[in-house]
This record gives sequence, C-alpha cells and structure tokens, in this order.
Amino acid sequence: MNVGLSRKEHGGQREILPSLQARLDCRAGMATTTAGVAGGFVQGNLAILPEKLASAFHRFCQLNPKPCPIIGMSDVGDPRIPALGLDLDIRTDLPRYRVWRDGEVAEEPTDIMAHWRGDLVAFVIGCSYSFEEALMTDGLPIRHVERKLRVPMYRTNIACQRAGPFAGPMVVSMRPFRPADAIRAVLITSRFPAVHGAPVHLGHPHSIGIADIGKPDYGDPVPVEADEIPVFWACGVTPQAVISAAKLPFAVTHAPGMMLVTDLQNKQLAVL
Amino acid sequence: MNVGLSRKEHGGQREILPSLQARLDCRAGMATTTAGVAGGFVQGNLAILPEKLASAFHRFCQLNPKPCPIIGMSDVGDPRIPALGLDLDIRTDLPRYRVWRDGEVAEEPTDIMAHWRGDLVAFVIGCSYSFEEALMTDGLPIRHVERKLRVPMYRTNIACQRAGPFAGPMVVSMRPFRPADAIRAVLITSRFPAVHGAPVHLGHPHSIGIADIGKPDYGDPVPVEADEIPVFWACGVTPQAVISAAKLPFAVTHAPGMMLVTDLQNKQLAVL
Repeated sequence: MNVGLSRKEHGGQREILPSLQARLDCRAGMATTTAGVAGGFVQGNLAILPEKLASAFHRFCQLNPKPCPIIGMSDVGDPRIPALGLDLDIRTDLPRYRVWRDGEVAEEPTDIMAHWRGDLVAFVIGCSYSFEEALMTDGLPIRHVERKLRVPMYRTNIACQRAGPFAGPMVVSMRPFRPADAIRAVLITSRFPAVHGAPVHLGHPHSIGIADIGKPDYGDPVPVEADEIPVFWACGVTPQAVISAAKLPFAVTHAPGMMLVTDLQNKQLAVL
Repeated sequence: MNVGLSRKEHGGQREILPSLQARLDCRAGMATTTAGVAGGFVQGNLAILPEKLASAFHRFCQLNPKPCPIIGMSDVGDPRIPALGLDLDIRTDLPRYRVWRDGEVAEEPTDIMAHWRGDLVAFVIGCSYSFEEALMTDGLPIRHVERKLRVPMYRTNIACQRAGPFAGPMVVSMRPFRPADAIRAVLITSRFPAVHGAPVHLGHPHSIGIADIGKPDYGDPVPVEADEIPVFWACGVTPQAVISAAKLPFAVTHAPGMMLVTDLQNKQLAVL
C-alpha cells in the first residue's frame, strides 16, 4: 500500500482530505460504518465482478440508471479508480467487504487483497447519502437520520431491464415527508441523477408491490404520519440484490453501510 | 383602435401572429373562451385597479408569487403593455371582462372603453394553460383537458400574505396523476415559475382544507382514480377571489375562461 505516497500527492499530512483520511483509516483496519464520515464527500456502493460478467453488469447498469448510476469503474485487473481518488485502492479502502460465492455471502473480510485477480472489474455506484445531504442542507427533515436508523428499503414489483444473468426487481428506499416537503424533495433530488435522481414513486406503496410499509425488506421501519406521504427513490441495494440472485460463482460487494468514501464532493454531482 | 397599424407593425397581414389574430378577433367582437386559442402563446389573467390600490395589490402579488405571478403590468392610465404585444390594448383585447363594484360583478362587457380611466393600472398574471402545454408536450395526460371540462379549483386553508385590503386563502387547481407522472409533473412545472411553477401540495387534500375533492369551489369535478394522487398548483383565480373579497368600489378582471392572449411564447417562460 502506498500510504506515504498518497500523503505526498495530497500535499503533506496537514492537507489530507477527510475522504482520503477515511480511506487511510480503512487501510489501518477501521471496520465501522461510513455513515456520517467525511461529510460533503461522495460515498459509493461497490460491485466487483470477473471480466466475462462485467460487460453484462455494465449493460445492466446502463439499462437501469436510476437504481444503478455508475460513478466510477476500474480497468480490468486494476485496483485503482483515479477519478474517485488518486491513491484509491479498491482492495483495501472500504471498511468491510462481502465475498459472494454462488449467491451466498462466503466471507466478510476487511480487505480483499487475497481475493484480487487480474480479471476483476470494480464498479462504484452512487448512493443516497449524497442527495440526503442536499435535502438536509435545504432544511428538510429525514426521519431515519433523525432517529439514527437505517433507511427502510423495499423490493418492488418494478422489474429492472435484464442484461445477461442480471435481472430482478428494483429495490427502493423510502423517506416520509409532508406534501410540500415531498415536492421540494423531488426538485432537489432531480439535480443529482448520479445518485438516483428524482423519486420513482410516491404516495401509493401498494401500486409498486409494497404490501406493508411497516415491514421493509432491508433497513429499519420508520413511521409515516397521517399528514405525510411516503416518497420512494431507486436504491443502490438493487445491484447487490441482482448479483445475489444471479448466483455467480464469485463476486465482491461492500458490506451494508460500509461504503467507499471518494474524493468527489456531493455538490459536484449537481447538474444545475 | 389601431388595427391597421398593428398589422403593419407585424409585417403585413400574411405574417400576423396567432396571438395578435386572437386579439384582433376580440376587438371585432369575439366573446368566446380563449382555451385552445393561439397554441404555444402565453395567456394571462387580468386585474385592473385604481392607482391608489394598485401598489398594495402589486405588493400582494410580490408576497404571493405562486398564485400571483405577474407577467406584465401597464403604466398608470396607459392601456398598453408593449412587453406582451406591441399593439396590445388592454381595454379591448380580451373576449369578455368583469366590472366589479363593491365586491360584486356589476357588468360583463366585451370591452371596457367606457370604463377606462387615467388612474387605472392593469396587471397580467400567469395562467396554468402555459404549464399544461408543457405537461402535454411531455406526454402526460391531463384529465380535465381530455374530458373537455374546466380544471377543478378549491379554496384552501393556506392563507395568502396580506397586503393592504388584499387577503384571503390561496385557491389551487387540481390535476390527478399516477405517481410516476406526478413526479414528472413536479419537475416540468418547476421550470415555469412565471406560471405558478411547481405544485404547492399533493396527496392529502384534507391537509390543505379541502373536505371533498369531488366538490370543487370553481370549475368542474374530475375523478381521481385509486392508483392516482391529486396534485395541486397555486391558481390564478386567487387574485380574483382576493379582489372580490376586498369589496373594492371599482375593479376589472377578465371573465372566467376569457383570458388575454399575449405574444409571449410558453417556451420563453421556461427557466431551464
């Protein structure tokens, strides 16, 4: 690992970006959630696949940009993604990984040095942390953040476009808002297409196959008050669910809540 | 009236804009709705007040830009608004007017030549026809248009900011959409702040004081299907309702559905 070099590249220890510091901490063994780490910097979901499956997965993301917006991608066999951080090493810079074999989690290591191969391709996919920052900056309350819970997520009846072995339902995250705030949230998140963009649904959970809003498939339940409406965004858990369902011989993802912290800033993702 | 001059200004009869033609038709006695007239051109709500009340009304519009977006305004005593049409004469160019005395409709003449005075100021306020065109161009279905009805409008419990004698509740118009279309409609109409902009509410009519969505205060009822949500925009009927409630000795507005057709194009109002 080239920690010393990275420090030099970034202009000495006093100028280390919070995002680089987070990656350095991961390299040094930090294995806790990245929620709240390096405020203002883009965090991403990770998917690593062998080259022969990577092109189909790339096409899956292309066909399903709302749940799977690619913000960075490695070359074949290259663990670096310089566009997301000059020193970034995808094998070591996340707190914890999931190694998948035949659709099951085989291991949850804190680095994947032992698993890296010359045929692997890494995809980094946008995450809702970025647009949540924009919502909070605007003064909108986010229930699960206020209550220190994980965002509730649901499998829907919205089918993703298939590509090779990759297929399945879109997973969505839900945040309840009062109606005027919901309208504002639509506008704000539409500025961030690289991190899921505008919502895909609001108001009628059953229309998208959610039988009980109180029982999310992932994350924690949060209440929706009588004067609120649930607003649903495409979620970066979708590609993980799809990879799991494809029962691939080998794949690597991040562990839940253990994201890649990049040197991109959330505000750089705004299109307007 | 200077019809001959107007034709000349616009480069001869063969080049008359559809909007000018509509105004010429009004001058010649046309007294039917302007709905569907001069597609692509901005139509406006009209309010004419004596100078001593005009400044308070202007401030009311300033304080309540969602229901009262001013797209044009005359000088005191001047019946022209060149920014909306070089030849435009506010005394003759609408199909029908309402002359208000002490909060009641006293007359509905087809011109106001006999009522014009040197102390009057005319305000032209944006109208939802402009954003409806943008919604339909995007392929979104608008129920009341499909059914050839007037849009349903409701008095709400949202209080406008008071200015002088002008005060009262915001009036909103309602269009039902399926959720994904509702999100799209929020985004599209946000591009048109000069014609009410993004919705003010969606999903919970009772939250804004609407007891029965099937009983609008103005316009016609339209059904909201089980998989749809009602979306509410601030409405240009608000200033009329406020003028009526103020029981002014004298005011003039357009008659319902009988708008001013301007030479502005709807697409010119888009901010992005």
